[in-house]
Order: sequence, then structure tokens, then C-alpha cells
Amino acid sequence: MTNCIQGFKDYFCRPKNTNVRLKLPFVCFAWQIAMIILFGVFVRYNNESDAHWVQNMAQNNITSAIENDFYYRYPSFQDVHVMIFVGFGFLMTFLKRYSFGGVGFNFLIAAFGIQWALLMQGWFHSLDPSTGKIYIGIENLINADFCVAGCLIAYGAVLGKVSPVQLMVMTLFGVTLYAVEEYIILNLLHAIDAGGSMIIHVFGGYYGLAISWVLYRPNLHQSKHLQGSVYHSDTFAMIGTLFLWMFWPSFNSATTYHGDGQHRAAINTYLCLTSCVLTTVAISSLSQKTGKLDMVRTRHSTYAYRLTNSTLAGGVAMGTAAVFMVSPYGALIVGFCCGILSTMGYLYISPFLEKTLKIHDTCGIHNLHAMPGVIGGIVGAITAATASESVYGMQGLINTFDFTGNFKDRTVFAQGGYQAAGMCVAMVFGIGGGAIVGAILRFPIWGDPADENCNDDDVYWEVPQDEEDQLESVPPILEYCNYMTNKPEDES
Amino acid sequence: MTNCIQGFKDYFCRPKNTNVRLKLPFVCFAWQIAMIILFGVFVRYNNESDAHWVQNMAQNNITSAIENDFYYRYPSFQDVHVMIFVGFGFLMTFLKRYSFGGVGFNFLIAAFGIQWALLMQGWFHSLDPSTGKIYIGIENLINADFCVAGCLIAYGAVLGKVSPVQLMVMTLFGVTLYAVEEYIILNLLHAIDAGGSMIIHVFGGYYGLAISWVLYRPNLHQSKHLQGSVYHSDTFAMIGTLFLWMFWPSFNSATTYHGDGQHRAAINTYLCLTSCVLTTVAISSLSQKTGKLDMVRTRHSTYAYRLTNSTLAGGVAMGTAAVFMVSPYGALIVGFCCGILSTMGYLYISPFLEKTLKIHDTCGIHNLHAMPGVIGGIVGAITAATASESVYGMQGLINTFDFTGNFKDRTVFAQGGYQAAGMCVAMVFGIGGGAIVGAILRFPIWGDPADENCNDDDVYWEVPQDEEDQLESVPPILEYCNYMTNKPEDES
Amino acid sequence: MTNCIQGFKDYFCRPKNTNVRLKLPFVCFAWQIAMIILFGVFVRYNNESDAHWVQNMAQNNITSAIENDFYYRYPSFQDVHVMIFVGFGFLMTFLKRYSFGGVGFNFLIAAFGIQWALLMQGWFHSLDPSTGKIYIGIENLINADFCVAGCLIAYGAVLGKVSPVQLMVMTLFGVTLYAVEEYIILNLLHAIDAGGSMIIHVFGGYYGLAISWVLYRPNLHQSKHLQGSVYHSDTFAMIGTLFLWMFWPSFNSATTYHGDGQHRAAINTYLCLTSCVLTTVAISSLSQKTGKLDMVRTRHSTYAYRLTNSTLAGGVAMGTAAVFMVSPYGALIVGFCCGILSTMGYLYISPFLEKTLKIHDTCGIHNLHAMPGVIGGIVGAITAATASESVYGMQGLINTFDFTGNFKDRTVFAQGGYQAAGMCVAMVFGIGGGAIVGAILRFPIWGDPADENCNDDDVYWEVPQDEEDQLESVPPILEYCNYMTNKPEDES
Repeated sequence: MTNCIQGFKDYFCRPKNTNVRLKLPFVCFAWQIAMIILFGVFVRYNNESDAHWVQNMAQNNITSAIENDFYYRYPSFQDVHVMIFVGFGFLMTFLKRYSFGGVGFNFLIAAFGIQWALLMQGWFHSLDPSTGKIYIGIENLINADFCVAGCLIAYGAVLGKVSPVQLMVMTLFGVTLYAVEEYIILNLLHAIDAGGSMIIHVFGGYYGLAISWVLYRPNLHQSKHLQGSVYHSDTFAMIGTLFLWMFWPSFNSATTYHGDGQHRAAINTYLCLTSCVLTTVAISSLSQKTGKLDMVRTRHSTYAYRLTNSTLAGGVAMGTAAVFMVSPYGALIVGFCCGILSTMGYLYISPFLEKTLKIHDTCGIHNLHAMPGVIGGIVGAITAATASESVYGMQGLINTFDFTGNFKDRTVFAQGGYQAAGMCVAMVFGIGGGAIVGAILRFPIWGDPADENCNDDDVYWEVPQDEEDQLESVPPILEYCNYMTNKPEDES
Repeated sequence: MTNCIQGFKDYFCRPKNTNVRLKLPFVCFAWQIAMIILFGVFVRYNNESDAHWVQNMAQNNITSAIENDFYYRYPSFQDVHVMIFVGFGFLMTFLKRYSFGGVGFNFLIAAFGIQWALLMQGWFHSLDPSTGKIYIGIENLINADFCVAGCLIAYGAVLGKVSPVQLMVMTLFGVTLYAVEEYIILNLLHAIDAGGSMIIHVFGGYYGLAISWVLYRPNLHQSKHLQGSVYHSDTFAMIGTLFLWMFWPSFNSATTYHGDGQHRAAINTYLCLTSCVLTTVAISSLSQKTGKLDMVRTRHSTYAYRLTNSTLAGGVAMGTAAVFMVSPYGALIVGFCCGILSTMGYLYISPFLEKTLKIHDTCGIHNLHAMPGVIGGIVGAITAATASESVYGMQGLINTFDFTGNFKDRTVFAQGGYQAAGMCVAMVFGIGGGAIVGAILRFPIWGDPADENCNDDDVYWEVPQDEEDQLESVPPILEYCNYMTNKPEDES
Repeated sequence: MTNCIQGFKDYFCRPKNTNVRLKLPFVCFAWQIAMIILFGVFVRYNNESDAHWVQNMAQNNITSAIENDFYYRYPSFQDVHVMIFVGFGFLMTFLKRYSFGGVGFNFLIAAFGIQWALLMQGWFHSLDPSTGKIYIGIENLINADFCVAGCLIAYGAVLGKVSPVQLMVMTLFGVTLYAVEEYIILNLLHAIDAGGSMIIHVFGGYYGLAISWVLYRPNLHQSKHLQGSVYHSDTFAMIGTLFLWMFWPSFNSATTYHGDGQHRAAINTYLCLTSCVLTTVAISSLSQKTGKLDMVRTRHSTYAYRLTNSTLAGGVAMGTAAVFMVSPYGALIVGFCCGILSTMGYLYISPFLEKTLKIHDTCGIHNLHAMPGVIGGIVGAITAATASESVYGMQGLINTFDFTGNFKDRTVFAQGGYQAAGMCVAMVFGIGGGAIVGAILRFPIWGDPADENCNDDDVYWEVPQDEEDQLESVPPILEYCNYMTNKPEDES
């Protein structure tokens, strides 16, 4: 009897060699203190969030407090905020024993990342050369959330296979690279990418895939029993999916120009996403012998989330072109194609990536972010190159492509070329940066889990005693078995 | 040993005859392609979402981009969007093995429905006769979401008993019928129904009940073991309940006239919902021997959701009158009555409907939507008929009841009559349309499940291997039993 | 065999003596009817939600319906509403068998509380002496939600140990006390407390702790087996945590003055919360032998929610000073300290409170609300006392501290003193009021659970038959054991 329970206990209490008791607190404290010092030196409230604003209103032709930009960005900001923390977080809860890691580490690195993003993006975009200060307002908060999204996408590729310390390092470098490529694409190339198809999704996707390629684990099958989902973990993942899907129109319209720009971006994204759902379901059903839908692909591999993720690909692909006059039916076509391609990706490309290229992509970010992001970049380049004054109107063309200042003489055709160039920059930064950061993460000092401990919350989290509870509920049966086993002997 | 495991497997792998591998993809592709073509022919951006808007601002007396209607409808739109996808979706996760079907099919049909609704409602309401085009903006997106809500309500009555193909057909016809009755009620009768008590809830409720009546399954008891809920599925259903409950003020105020109209509609709905919670709890507790509350009625039947659904009835009943001057205490009284009636409905009317009328109503939509919708219509008719210039003010009366154009000489008393007529139209369309659509759905070509496979996700979804996992965790015990059983013999 | 199953059944069907069948409905009905009468006598729509508004616009210098305050408060209101119902509700789902009680009773008392709060706060703040009426608009709804938050905080201390009737009584008195202390702090002392560090969190925290002290149960260990969490209940709690965390900037900015005030309050809270996450993770990891993170402290006690709750402490501590010019780095420092102190609180102060002071604090509200609230009050007092015209600007100083009317000559130094006085008032009301209300709740008429029935939904809820389902899944194994046990005998 005792041996038996001991055996159960041994079975459930696997060895761990992933003590992060000093590393993780050290990294958290050191970086948070650095943030405080850097914020103290550099960051101040911008004009609209400073208490002096009310005095300066007259100078800025503002007649009422309700013209503060806060009211025209904040609702979108909160939607984006929900996508970052609940959307990305719960999308990663699908693994049966990695829900804490999915949503909890997502929380940790997003909270760190947005501070560092405010600084990095501030230095490149909002630094006032005369005072040497970064002035932040609501638009900076949205951009910081966007920046962090790139790193959370990358997390999807390595979900379950890295330690929180590695994730912090990955985020530090990821945000840094993001800010640089964003500066090149938006400011130097002057490409338009309001919803970040290129800047966020192509970069984040390839950044994660390159890291996952460097960190490839040939013996990951040792934790295969934890690679699937369970019924409730899939339902949790559906929460993440839906909040991402619903709020994507806010994501793509959050930073576009006021008025028709935000309005159009929201409509385009909304339409694109609806048509993506139908083709995802169609391909998903076609690919199964009995036509069953696959919430998360569970049976044969961890190429996960066919339905939950592919429905989102339309939002990614609409990121660049959302503000353009792609027409409602154009948006539907983009979604139509994305649903097919993304689902096909889960069926054919992900297995190919793993077998041939040795890239294990836990959440299938290649199909949700990288590939749809590339499609989005191409769609953006084509629709920019074919824009015309008859469709946009003179002022509309200037607003949409921001043909002002140094760029006021640029043609739409040239703009198309710069859009394409922007996508290449994003891809180069993603792959190159990911390879280098991956190499850094290979150092055996970050407390990463052994192959057999992957996908297991028990490594970095105090997990409630479900197993032991189950264990404690077993004895009556064993007791009974024991009783029944012995009884005959006693009686006989 | 082997036999035993085989026996387990046989038990869990029941026969399925519901292959939708060709039907579902065919329907999805065909309809999505049709949508793209129709959108290409008919749908364009409206004035406020077109890039020309900035040039036309002066003509429209608009001085700043922040006057774009986007900013005064979009936050409400996003709340409504959350209600449609998370609210309705998670409200239907309560069945122990139908969470995927609840939230996933809800997702599919809503995504299809809003495209078709944009077209149907566009033809009736937004078609510009001079160009033959439908011009869409944020208000059209809200109305499309509203239209789909009618079909999702109907889904509640047949939850667990239909195939996704049937749901697509039901949505196609449902949206079509909705657009026609909406045109009759709002444009021809000129009734007011901002939150859709009649147009959405009465129509959707009776549409679903009539379909469920035609599709009645006398042997549904064969899947009785799957008709209940489990602890976590009820908690998931609570997510849906709360998001519906919280955002209902946005639902009822989303399309009312700007200014005091939206403001008042939100306040009335908020108050009505709070008082509905208290009477629901009271009746729920009174009806049990020991005063226990019933999250979802589980023990004896699937007349589900007593607490989760009845708390929402107040929002339904406030749909028509939300914008009227019903007074704060009037709103509380409506909620008070609705909580009682809706909970009573779960106790007495639903069993009566099933036993006597042979209508099986999985989610109890009669108590949540149909009946409270009728109450809402009556409240609306009475409060309209008794409106007075002293309470509304001259201009307020014109704004609230839109007494302009052809209707500028209508009296409030006549308005009350037209409100009542509107409710009858909604009911006739619901019952008549549902009976016809139900007959169509009886054709044996839609892949619907057998009686013993109802309420089971396993029919249309790849379900994670929970059962098999549990099975795999059994062997140690069996092993132990085996060992203990054999040991005495070995030793003796 | 039969005995065995009977034994299982006995084990799971524990005795209950907590019939609230008459008490709960009586309280609900009586109070709801009282609300309706009082609303009928006192409550009317305010200027901006009344149908006369459009006629009065010219008098109020309003040129367009989009200037209605609805548009500048409603998005924040909805965020706060989500925090109250989903945030607080799901934060309390962590107990393995008390998810219904956590989220359901939260729903009940919040729905009742906001009605009573509208009245109580109306009498003190919005009563028009000339008409004797309370005029309500969107800002009153936000304040009612705030008021209820105080009672929901208090619920956290007694979660699992009280009956719904006790909760209703606690809320009735809690809202009453809240309205009085709010009047004293905001109107008489003229302290600033936009996010309610003092009014909401200090009051609510100490109110709950005092009640829990009076209701101390020395034999609570009898329900120890239900004091922990399970894997999925922790994931549900994470939903609550994240919605609170994300929307806290809306909470602290919802009622501040328009323009830079709301803008700055949102930025400060956002920053404070991010830094709080990092120090919470750091201390949480440091405190464990192997550096594991603790989602909810489960193994040794119910001092729950280390990670889920402490990450929120920053929002609490920023409540008073959110609108002040604390600087971005100042906000980060407050979050830094709060994360450390709150996590330390779970480690050292909660056990001390229980052992020495006999206060059992189920959710650890001392660490999430009471202590961070005190920090927030102190931060507010210091930053107010050190405010200067150079930092705020003349008009900014007047706007921020509302130095108008009777208070136009107050110095910032005096303001600091009044802030500190405000915190003392909140604490006195919390401790004193809690002690008295606790004494009332000790009367043996409220149907509270026995010690061994605490933390068990089965007492007040119809719980789905999970256990019996499990029971029904056991027999095959027993059957098998039986078979294997008997077989040798049969064969031998």
C-alpha cells in the first residue's frame, strides 16, 4: 500500500533543475530600477497631459477641454490593452498544463516591455532636442502596447520551452530591435503601417521563429504528453481568440489619423475578419476525414490553434492597408485568402518547418503572424502603388499617405516601393535579430527547463495540488481493492 | 487487462453519422464568394469613412475631424461586439460537453450573418437610389451586429441539436426575415425600437422557438447524460452572462439619437438590470426547498440558466422604452417584474412548452428573450401613448419619437398604437418564418446529429483527449489492482 | 459493492443547516420595493439626460449634441463597470469550490449596492434643495460603482464564510457609511481622492477586516480541504486580475476633471501598475525555496493571490495622486514600493493578523487594498503639500486641487494636511463601522454556514453533479477490480 502511494508520488514529483530564485528577482529589480532612473532623466508628461495644458489651450486653438486627444484615443487604447494582456495571454492558455505560464509570463514581459518601449520609442520619435526630454501622452501608450505585441508574438513560438529569465532577455532585445526597425520603416522610408502588419507581425513572427530555430530541442518529444490541450484549456484559449478578434478593428485604427482614417480602418478590419472566419472553418473541415472542426489541433502534434488562430489572420493582413481605400469587397477578399493560407499553413507549412528546417513553433505564429503579415505588406504595397486622386481626393491622398514635409512630392508608385522595402527591413530585423538573440539565450545560465519538463507549469509555478488531490481521492479505491483482494483470503 | 481497456475505448467512441466534410466547406465557400461579389457590386464607404470626407467637411458644417460620428458610436459598437461574440458565445458554454459548439458555432454564424446583414439592411435602409450603392459607416456595423443577435437568440433554442450547416441556413433566412420586418416596423410603421425589444428579441425568440417546434426530437432523452452542466462550464457561462449584463446599456443606447437620447437610454437600462438581479435571486431561492440558488438548472432538466439568464431579462424589456422618459423608478419597476416573470418562466412555462407544445428550448430563450421582449413592446407602447409635451418638451418629443417628415403630425397616442402593431409584426415574422425555415431544416441533407449524439461536441469537433488521458491515468490503479490481486496467489 | 458506493455518497453529501429560502427572498423583495419607492420620490434624470436638454442647450452654451458629457464619461464608466462585475467577481473565483459564491454573490450585492449608492450619494451630493430631487447622470453611475467597490473589497475578507443575507446587510451598511465618509472627506475636508485610495480602498479594506475580526471562526480548519485552489479556478481568477489591472487607469481617471486631468491620471496609473508587476514577481520568486512563482498561495494556507493580487496594489496606491503631477518616474517608484510591500504583506503580515489579531482575511485585502490605500493616502498628502505653481501652472493648480469657492485661499501645504486628515477619517469609519456591523452580523438569524461548510458552494447553490459523475465513472474500475479479485477465485 505505502509503496504504491510512494510510487504515485514519485511519478508526479519529477526532478527540476530550473531554480530561478536569484536570477529572476535580480533581473526584475535591476531592470525596474534602471527604468526608474531613465524615466527620471528623460520622461515627462506631454502638452496634453500636463497641468499647464489649460493655460496653453488658447495658444493651441483649443476652445474646450473635451478636445483633448485623450477622448479620441483612449477607448481604442483600452481595446488594444485588452488584446495585449487578455487576448495574447489567454490565446496561450491552450496547453493542458501551461496556462499559468501562458498568461502569467505574458503579463510579466508585457509589463516590463511597455516601460522599455516608452523609452526606446521615445528616443527615436518623441525626443525634444531642445530639452532632451521625451514627452508622453496617450498615443505613446498605444505605441508601447504595439511594440510589446511584437515580443508577445515571438513568445508564441517558444511557449513552454523557455524560462521567465530568457523571456525577459528576449523582450529587452526585442523591444530595442523593434524601435530601430520602426524608426527606419516609418521615419526614414516613410512607409505607412498603422496596424503593424510589417512592423509588428512580420518582425515579431520572424524574430520568434529565428529564436526557436536556434533553441531547437531535438528531444522535445520527452514532454509530448503535455503538448496537447484539454477541454477547458481550449475554452480558455477561445477567450483570448475572441477578444483579439473583436478588438482588432481598434488595433488597426488606434493610431491612424483622426476622422475618416480611423473610421475606415475599423470598417476594413471588421470586414476582413468576418470573411476570414468562413474560409478558416471551410478549410479546417475539409482537411479532416469526417469534416470535424479543430479548435486546437491536438491529436497528432502541437501545431496548435487551427481554428482559434487562423480566424485572426485577417486582422494581421489588414494591418498595413486598413487605412487605405481598399473598398469593402477588397477587405473581404483579403480575409478570404488569409483564412485559406493560414489554415493551410497549419496543415502543411508548420510540419515542414519542423521536420526540414528544425523550427518548432508552439503556437504556429508563422501561420498567424509571419505569413499573414507578409501578405499584409504586399497588399499594402500594391494598394499604395495603385492609389489615385480620384479615389482618395487630393487632401485624402495627403492625409492617408502623409505626403507632407520632405515627402510632399513623393508619388504613390514610389510609395508602393517604399512599402515593399519596409517589409524587407522588418523581415531582416526579425530573422537577423532573432538569430543573435537566440544565440545569447543558449547560454546555460538562464534556467531553462529540461526537455522532459517543457510545457509544464510545475517548473516555474506553485501549482495547486490537483494531482495530489486526485491522489488523495484514489486511496478509497485502492483501499477497496485491497479489501476485496484480501477479503477472499481472509474468508477463504 | 486488454479487454478492459478496449471496453473503455468502446464506451467512449460512440458511432457518428454526421459527416459535414463537403457540405460545410461548400456552404462557407459559396456564400463567402457570393458576399464578395455582392459587396463588390453594392457596398461602398459612406461619407464619413471615405477619404474625401476631409474635403467635404466645410460643406457639412464640420470644423474638426473629431466631429466624425466614429467617435460617438465606436465605443458603443465595441461593447455590442463583445456582447455578440463573448456574451452570446459564452452564455452557451454551460453544457458539459458542448462548449466548443456553443462558442464556436456562435462565432461562425455571427461572422457570416453580419456580412449578409450589411447587405440586406443596406438594401432596405441605406441604398442610394441615384447610384445604386449602399454606403456603410459605423452605424451600419452596429445594426449588422443587432441583426445577427436575432439569429443567435434563435440558436439558443436549438443549441446542441443541429449541425453547423443547419445553423448557416437558419442564419441566412433569419437575417433576411429580420431585415424585412425591421423595415416594416421602423420605416413603414415608424415605431421606435432602439434596443430591439421587438425587432431583435421578440422576432429572434419566436423564430427560434418555431424552428425548435418543427425540429422536435421525441427521443432527446437518449443524450440526457450530456444535458447538464459541470462546475467549470457554469463558470464559463457566467462570463457570458456578465459581459451581456454589463454592456446592455451600450446595446440599448448604441443607435439612439445623440445627446440626451443615448445618455437616458444607458441610465434606464442600467437601473432596470440592477433591480432584475434582485428579484431573480429572490424567486430562484424561493423556488427551492432549501433556498439554494440555481446558477444553471442542472439536476432535473436542461431548462437552463435560471440565474444566469433571468438577470438579463431586464435589458431585453428595456429595449424599446430605453430612450423614453420612463423615469428612474419606472426602469426599476420594469426590471422588478421581468426578474420575477423570467424566473417563473423557467419554473413553469418551459416545462409546459415542452410537455404540451412539444417545444424543447435548450437555453430557455422564451424566458430570456421572447417573453421579456413582449413585455418590452407593451411597456414601449404604453409609455409612448402616454408621452406628453410637459415631460419631454416640444423638441424632446420630436427627437425621441422622430416626428419629422411624413410623421410630423402623428400624435403620441397613435404612436402607441403603431408600437403595438410593430410587436405583432415581429411576432408574426418570428413564428411564421421559423415554421417555414424549420421545415426546410428537416430535409435529411444537413448532417444533423442523431438523438443520442446531441449536446456532444465530439460530433463536429476534434475534442481533446481528456477521456483517453483519464484512461491512460487509470492503468496504474488497474496495474495495482492486478498486482494485488495476483500477489496473494503468487505468494500463497 | 453497494456499501462502497453508499460510502462514497455519504462522504460527498455533508449535512447543511443554512436554509435561506425565506430570508433571502424577503430581504431582496423588501429592499427592492423600498428602492422603487425611494427612487419614485427622489430620483430624476439630470439636465444632460433629460429630453428637455436639447431645448436648454443654447442656455448652457452648448452648440452640438456631441458635447453631452455622456461621450466623455461613458467609456470610462463601462471600464469601471467591467472591473466591478467581472474584475472583482472573477478575482474571487480562486477557491476550488466557491466560484459560484465568489462571482454570483458579488453580482448580487453589487446590483443592490449601486441602487442604494445612487440614493445615499444623491442625498449628500446631488440633492437640489429647491425641488428636493436627486438628478442623476453618467457621473452618478460611476460614483455608485465606486461606492459598491468598497463593499466588494470588504466581501474579499469574509469570502466563503458568510451567507448571502449577511452580505446584503453588510452592503446596506457599507454603502451608508461610505456615503457619509465620502461627504466628510470630499466636501467638508475638501480632500482630493479621484481614484479613491482613501475613500474606497482604506475604508473598504478596514471595514472588511473589522467585520472579519468580529466574525472570527477559531475552527475554520474544519473546511481546510476546500481552502485551496485548483488549476482551472486559478486561471479563472486570472481573468479577474487582468481586467482589473487593464482598466485601473480608467478607474482612477473616470471622475477627474476633463482634459489634462483624465489624461494624466490614466498615464500615472498605467505606469505605476507596470512597475508593480515586476517587483511582485521578484519578491514572489525570492520567497520560495526554488524560486517558483505563486499564482495564488495554495499549499500552506489561504493567504491567497500573491501574484494575482499584488500586481494590482499599484493601482490602489495611485488612486489619490493619479491626477497630481507626480511625474512618470514618480508613478514607477510608487508601483515599485507597492509590489514589494503587498507581496511582503502576504508573506508576513497576513499570518501575523490571523495568529495574533485573530483576523482571517480570505483574499488578503489587507495587502491589496488597506495597506496600499494607506500608502496612496500618504503619497497624496505629500505630493499635495509639495505642489507648486511652477509645476502645475496657476490654472493647473486650481483645476487639480479645485481651489474654488470656499477653498480658493487654501495653500497646498494646508491641502496636504487635509489629505492626511481624510485618510484618518476613512480608517476610523472603516474600523468603527466594521466593528458595529460585524456585531450585527453575529446574530444567529442570517443563515451563515457552519465551520465545516465554509468555502463550499454546495451550501447556497445547486452545484452540478460533478462528484456524482465522477462517482458514476468509478464503478467500471471497481467492477474491474471486483472482477479481477473474484476471477482468480473462480478460476482457482
